[in-house]
Order: sequence, then C-alpha cells, then structure tokens
Amino acid sequence: MRNTQYELSPMDNFSEDTLFMRMALREAEQAAAEGEVPCGAVIVLDGEVIGKAHNQTETLKDPTAHAEVLAITQATQAVGNWRLNGAVMYVTKEPCPMCAGALVLSRMKKVVWGMTDPIRGGAVSKFNILNEADLNHAVETEAGLMEADCKAVMQGFFQDLRLRTKEQRQQRKLDGEETG
Amino acid sequence: MRNTQYELSPMDNFSEDTLFMRMALREAEQAAAEGEVPCGAVIVLDGEVIGKAHNQTETLKDPTAHAEVLAITQATQAVGNWRLNGAVMYVTKEPCPMCAGALVLSRMKKVVWGMTDPIRGGAVSKFNILNEADLNHAVETEAGLMEADCKAVMQGFFQDLRLRTKEQRQQRKLDGEETG
Repeated sequence: MRNTQYELSPMDNFSEDTLFMRMALREAEQAAAEGEVPCGAVIVLDGEVIGKAHNQTETLKDPTAHAEVLAITQATQAVGNWRLNGAVMYVTKEPCPMCAGALVLSRMKKVVWGMTDPIRGGAVSKFNILNEADLNHAVETEAGLMEADCKAVMQGFFQDLRLRTKEQRQQRKLDGEETG
Repeated sequence: MRNTQYELSPMDNFSEDTLFMRMALREAEQAAAEGEVPCGAVIVLDGEVIGKAHNQTETLKDPTAHAEVLAITQATQAVGNWRLNGAVMYVTKEPCPMCAGALVLSRMKKVVWGMTDPIRGGAVSKFNILNEADLNHAVETEAGLMEADCKAVMQGFFQDLRLRTKEQRQQRKLDGEETG
C-alpha cells in the first residue's frame, strides 16, 4: 500500500487520549498494509493497554474479525473475565452494529472514536445500540478524536485501491492489444 | 443441569427446517449442560451443515462467543470465504444486535429462529438490523419455528438456576445456624 498522502498530525495537543488513538491509528495503518479496510482499536484499563487489534476480515476470511471484536476477545483473555468493567476503547471509526453490540455485551465503560459513520454507524448514527435503555448496559461515547487523521487513513486506502484497480485495468488492456 | 421439565415435541411435522432446528436445540441443551445461557445455532449451505455451535461466553470468558458468531466463524473456515452467500442459519433465539450485525456482514441469505426476544432482539424486535436499506446486505427472516421447544429450553435453564440459587441460600443459612 502507498498511503503516501497520509501523515499524522503533529503532537501539539498531547494527552493520554491522543496517545491511545495514535496507537489505534498505527493498527489501522497495519490493516491497510495487509490490504484490509483500515480500522484499528485499542482497549485501555487503568492506564494499561489490554487489547490492540486491526481489521483482519480478509486475512482470517472471517466477517466477525473486525478490530473491535478482536480487541475485545484479546482484552477479556488478558483480564480473565468477559466483563471489561471500567475499560475504554479507542477506535478509528464509529463501530458498526456488530461491534456496538459487542461493546455493550463486554460492559465497556466508554468508547472514543475518530471518524463518524453517518450511514452505517451502529453506535449512535444509524442505530443507537450503545445507549438503549432495554439493553443490559450503556456505553459512554466520545466522537471526533483525531478525526482528520482517522479520515486520512481511510481515504488514503480507498484512493490507493481505486488507483490500483485503474492501473490493473489499463495493464489488461495493454496485454490485450499485444496479444490481440 | 436438571432440565427435567424439557422434552422435545414429537416429530410429527418432519421437515428439513425442523431437522436443523432440532440440531440447534441440541446445541442449546449442550450450552445449558455447561452452565451457559442455552442458545444454539446451525448454518446450512446446499443442504450441508457447515457450522454448528452453542453459546460459550462463560467457558471462553468472551462476551463475543455467542452461538451465532461462533457458528459464522466456523462456517467461513469450512468454505474458505468470509461471504456465506446462500447459507441459512437456524438459531433457537432471535439474534442480539451483535449477532444480527454479524449475520449482515457474513452475507447470510436467511435466518430462522425459534423464540423472539421483544426486549433486546437485534434482528427485527428492538433494532431492525437484518433489513436496513443503508447496510450492504439484507437477511431474510423467519420467526417462530419450534418456538415452544426453544422457549422450554430457555425457561428450564432459568428455573434450574433460580432453584439452585435458592438451595444454596438455604444451605448457607443452615451452615450459619450450625456454626453461629
């Protein structure tokens, strides 16, 4: 993957939150490098990282292998308990319905994301899964942390994808002219 | 687990659908035997079972280890593709929001469930995740297959749980009287 357009914004406003979101962004970059839609997630409990993952649906051939689900499984194994009371997730994109449901089930205290997904977001945008009175638990939310950086990773990935697809099409056309 | 109240209804109306739902019910019974909330799921593609699982959240200490998610992962590994186009899931309970999201992501053709969950159901009851125009895919639904049997497994589990809790409380009281 090229991702040449992408550069992290300077750490002017350093805080623990931006530190953990940078970590999630590094995971998203790793996903892009593996040809995966770039989403990264980090789970923090009492200042310690207990889960860190990126989207691996293509690599694992598993549609449930989103960054958030993988990070939740990792974190529960780290603490030896399926309840992640008090933990905070940092994720580059608003969670989808599956991941929002997983966040509620895990009893996550809070989720902080970068870019919002107004069309398919399962946290607050399309479905309000994280704060539904009838579910067992509500998850606090914070949207828009390092939003520009999170968008840049995603847009860079899809720009590269379009460029590669165009190049491949042109190459096939050239190959056809040579052999035709 | 006792589950003595529970007995499968006779196979008067035998069909492929009831056969697969019975298989899902056996998975639910296995969950109950392991002290898990009894939910079972089976995935069928072209008449062949490609995934079969029961809830294992307590055993695996993982809140994402619902029957549906485990069965989806199993099925994708069986076919070597994260897309389960054309597959049908049989599950004893209406999927929760997490599992409904996973069903959409997996491109499942249809899901058939036994008991509906009007309070927390993520398929059609509380959230209509399986048939939302803005998501990439819609999943066909059929509710109420072998509903009485599916309810009986669930109710038997919680009756047993209440009984055991009561017995333990009485035993602790007796122990207290003896040592007090």
